[in-house]
Amino acid sequence: CHQTGQPNRNNRSFTIDYGMNTFVKDGVPFRYISGSIHYFRVHPNHWEDRLKKIRSAGLNAIQVYVEWNSHEPEPGKFQFEGNQDLERFLELAHKWGLLVILRPGPFIDAERDFGGLPFWLLQKNKQVKLRTADPSFMKPVRSWFKVLFQKLKRLLHQNGGPIIMVQVENEYGSYGQQTGKCDTEYISQLRDITREHLGQEVLLFATDGGGSIDSIRCSKVPGVYSTVDFGPTEDFKDRFHHQRLFEPHGPLVNSEFYTGWLDHWGHPHSQTPSKKVNSVLDAMLKFGANVNLYMIHGGTSFGFGAGSNFPPFQVTPTSYDYDAPISEAGDLTPKYEDLKRVVAKYEAIPDAIQVKNSSKRAYGSIYLKPLGTIFDHVKNLTTFSMGISTNPLTFEELGQAFGFVLYEHRLDHVTTNPVQLEIKGLHDRGYVYVNQELQGILSRSESIFTMPLIIAKGQKLQILVENQGRICFGKNLNDFKGITSAVKLGNNILTNWHMRSIPVSHVSHFDTTPPSLKTKFKSMSFWKGHIKISCPRSSPEDTFLSFQHWSKGLVFVNGFNLGRYWPRLGPQETLYLPGPLLKCGINDVLVLEQEKTPCRFHKGSWLNCNIKSTDSPQINGQTPSV
Amino acid sequence: CHQTGQPNRNNRSFTIDYGMNTFVKDGVPFRYISGSIHYFRVHPNHWEDRLKKIRSAGLNAIQVYVEWNSHEPEPGKFQFEGNQDLERFLELAHKWGLLVILRPGPFIDAERDFGGLPFWLLQKNKQVKLRTADPSFMKPVRSWFKVLFQKLKRLLHQNGGPIIMVQVENEYGSYGQQTGKCDTEYISQLRDITREHLGQEVLLFATDGGGSIDSIRCSKVPGVYSTVDFGPTEDFKDRFHHQRLFEPHGPLVNSEFYTGWLDHWGHPHSQTPSKKVNSVLDAMLKFGANVNLYMIHGGTSFGFGAGSNFPPFQVTPTSYDYDAPISEAGDLTPKYEDLKRVVAKYEAIPDAIQVKNSSKRAYGSIYLKPLGTIFDHVKNLTTFSMGISTNPLTFEELGQAFGFVLYEHRLDHVTTNPVQLEIKGLHDRGYVYVNQELQGILSRSESIFTMPLIIAKGQKLQILVENQGRICFGKNLNDFKGITSAVKLGNNILTNWHMRSIPVSHVSHFDTTPPSLKTKFKSMSFWKGHIKISCPRSSPEDTFLSFQHWSKGLVFVNGFNLGRYWPRLGPQETLYLPGPLLKCGINDVLVLEQEKTPCRFHKGSWLNCNIKSTDSPQINGQTPSV
Repeated sequence: CHQTGQPNRNNRSFTIDYGMNTFVKDGVPFRYISGSIHYFRVHPNHWEDRLKKIRSAGLNAIQVYVEWNSHEPEPGKFQFEGNQDLERFLELAHKWGLLVILRPGPFIDAERDFGGLPFWLLQKNKQVKLRTADPSFMKPVRSWFKVLFQKLKRLLHQNGGPIIMVQVENEYGSYGQQTGKCDTEYISQLRDITREHLGQEVLLFATDGGGSIDSIRCSKVPGVYSTVDFGPTEDFKDRFHHQRLFEPHGPLVNSEFYTGWLDHWGHPHSQTPSKKVNSVLDAMLKFGANVNLYMIHGGTSFGFGAGSNFPPFQVTPTSYDYDAPISEAGDLTPKYEDLKRVVAKYEAIPDAIQVKNSSKRAYGSIYLKPLGTIFDHVKNLTTFSMGISTNPLTFEELGQAFGFVLYEHRLDHVTTNPVQLEIKGLHDRGYVYVNQELQGILSRSESIFTMPLIIAKGQKLQILVENQGRICFGKNLNDFKGITSAVKLGNNILTNWHMRSIPVSHVSHFDTTPPSLKTKFKSMSFWKGHIKISCPRSSPEDTFLSFQHWSKGLVFVNGFNLGRYWPRLGPQETLYLPGPLLKCGINDVLVLEQEKTPCRFHKGSWLNCNIKSTDSPQINGQTPSV
Repeated sequence: CHQTGQPNRNNRSFTIDYGMNTFVKDGVPFRYISGSIHYFRVHPNHWEDRLKKIRSAGLNAIQVYVEWNSHEPEPGKFQFEGNQDLERFLELAHKWGLLVILRPGPFIDAERDFGGLPFWLLQKNKQVKLRTADPSFMKPVRSWFKVLFQKLKRLLHQNGGPIIMVQVENEYGSYGQQTGKCDTEYISQLRDITREHLGQEVLLFATDGGGSIDSIRCSKVPGVYSTVDFGPTEDFKDRFHHQRLFEPHGPLVNSEFYTGWLDHWGHPHSQTPSKKVNSVLDAMLKFGANVNLYMIHGGTSFGFGAGSNFPPFQVTPTSYDYDAPISEAGDLTPKYEDLKRVVAKYEAIPDAIQVKNSSKRAYGSIYLKPLGTIFDHVKNLTTFSMGISTNPLTFEELGQAFGFVLYEHRLDHVTTNPVQLEIKGLHDRGYVYVNQELQGILSRSESIFTMPLIIAKGQKLQILVENQGRICFGKNLNDFKGITSAVKLGNNILTNWHMRSIPVSHVSHFDTTPPSLKTKFKSMSFWKGHIKISCPRSSPEDTFLSFQHWSKGLVFVNGFNLGRYWPRLGPQETLYLPGPLLKCGINDVLVLEQEKTPCRFHKGSWLNCNIKSTDSPQINGQTPSV
């Protein structure tokens, strides 16, 4: 059953030779050694640097997720500028000799909020059946894919660009398995939409966990080549055997060979020894397989980009270093050097490409001054205010993607003392206040949904709920945020809620009048400082912000949301601050500390009130004892 | 089967005529109309007043519990002075023509701590089988009864005193039923001990719920006359029929005819209409029954005297007004007047006895000044300090009857954020501090045994546990106080505890240096003020202390522990302060507020920082909506 694809008019083609069990590029057998990199996790000024480093290791391709939610934050409003300039990213790959294996989703997981899906899918139709042929899901997908594929068509290999293959969905099989329905109609529709926009000759593939035959079967449709993914601790021959059950001929492909693993807040930093990774890679390459390294470079989940896993509910940190060969800050690790040595046995290393680690700089202590609590600024921070609703509304019902919602209820009856507060559907972290005084924190990740309260009739119960990142994997994908259940106080269900959307997306317009010194900084509070940079010769260098002695919060540098810090929980203790976010001169640093600061007001000034800029990261810090 | 007891040498006798179905006093048929009064709930200076009022209603007897734990607070150390001068109380009854139906227990319930048992029974032997023939229980009972009965023997009717009957145990049947064993050996031993000390001729009786034939049967032993108890909503003929199943001949006796009912903190004040009570009383008296009114005068559970019920765990308030004919403050209520009219139909009313309500006085606002938090004074307050124990020890293990125990543990590991604190065996109310900062309150009565905590390695977890009163009814009588289970923090069981006994029994020796103004009065705190009384003609009059706007605590007047206040929960909002506790001139008032005060420090002075002395009680205040 020898078969080749149809070469296109320019003699550029990318097909499979089933007789030879290989990919064929422009008529010549081809094997890829690829690496995953997420453009949305790398500052765009660093894209080229990172791509050069990937190529410099001898890899001939990259594998790229496309994140729908960042490109279409509101229905029909598309963003392809700056961080979202996917075409530029792919062109840079092309420039440096890297082919592209495109993974457009629509679902991508990738430890991203909602697995890359836009939150507004849940707003439009609460009952939407995600990742199925449900028209509520497929209509927005069609609209998005039309826009995306029209942009990318020119970047297909056969059209002169770098894209050699396009993935249909992403590890769909495990989802189908978990939800109990393998919706091949859905996968077929995605296949057809892709072909409709990109042409019949585009090579489509699927990826599923190599450990589960059922998963591979579940996502299998005609015309889409099945590949598997698995890590270095698994038996690669067994996994490829599983691929062979569905693709008796054609290239062996591990679409995600794990160079490291993801982290969760509160759990030790994941590390995979280089020796293990590279010896298995060597064996697979020797075996003739195509391999994509997940990740070759992980990067950073800036802002609110990080997703969560469930069950149990586990939140991923800001660093997506992944223990990958190229570190979060773009540095070449020993794992990279080992990798390069292995790849060199199979591919020519392009020695002409010069790469080096960026220099890092410790800008020292950044002294912070108080701007007041979240309650001092609540009016300015509120982007949408909802009068009285019988039941609390979710973020999605309020049309809010990220950040916080403040739920307020004025108590109209006398309670016991204490009285149990219960919010079974708290998503995800609830700061519980009575008349602006913090009473305690409820936490989905710790399964703490109840607490004792002392509250009097007429007092205001205020629950400030943080969205910690929507679930990105598994059947519980429909992850509404905020208060998603009844709020019980003793035996009473509380009704009549006032809600404020506090997305904390624009934080530049702060009243800079210092707050009263009496302000209680046990509440969530804002702090401001600056980094002064003199640039005699070069532009500002990368650095790391250390939040030692701070608890949990967000930091904005020159208005850019760098992401979440949470050294209190670990393992990540510093945040990577890419140089391109800095400028020569004064750089604004705004900290939203959600919990307790180390600051102490003493004789007219603030003590211990600083964070530090350091020249090395700490993402392997202490985590709780189990 | 006509039978009479053996008249004693003075021709004074009290027996039963089974043929005539009546008691016989000194050879003459006799029917009692009695009322329950607890000497330990009335200031001794008021005993005579209350007894006169009882007699003045036409009642010819009182029924009196003896509270073991107040007479033998430590093993072998007996108290019969002042409040505990039972002989004086009985002599006063005798003086005013009231016979005495003695109920020596050893268990009495009576909504008293541990049902009147001494806490140290649980210290001597954790496994003690209370209210059984277990020698661990019976040996202390024998020792106590020997002392008690030797004192009271002279007060038996046949010896010239007022005591006509002695109860064996107290509603034992329901306990035997609940625990699954009717220990007639135990009841028989009590019977025999009583006879041994008081003589063979003493008339013994038992009391059990008239609604439960099984209970009456359960406590039945030969030589002890079975009586029943029931309230005005029950069918008295049916209940007496139950008595007749076990006593086919002899007097009909309702040993506890409920004139009102007990209260629990957080539940509406119990009220029983006078008409209902007195019409059923009239019918029973017409029917020929002997009746004891429970209560004729309830009084006050001063200090830590109040007990608790279970399940659910419900705490009784300081007032034991009971909606009785004579109010907590000794006033004659409309129910009293109605009662007197009913009794007058059957007994001569001794018109010669002059009784009147005491005058009450509002001494006005009592301004309070801070003495500091419990942590400021913890060293002075600690009567016993226990170094490091692997597991937390109970009050009983620490040899402590009442008050508080402070449990401290220094955290030696990193926890999640937040982390769940769980103390399943918290008895009863736990104030949870981290480094002296209050985090929340755990509560047995609200079944709140968990709460989220934010705590760092090296910080001190401090749990200040209040004993709210030991269980006084039912099979769960072995009610150890303090922390009676493992303390879990996340998945870890915390070991290595330091404990401080803080019984708050002696509070006179306070350092009067004002605390730092920075003292945080969210912690339990002490406040001091005074009542200045000028006494031109008379000694100080009764008053009521109103704790409006205060939360929950204790108040000491001239060093006397007046009892618990808890207006935040209700229904009791004022504490009865008997005039005899006051003196002319300056009277010290010391408040231990366990939770939140209304006090506010503003420009150098304290605002809103007062309680009030009023001339009328409020024990029927607002309670939580269910």
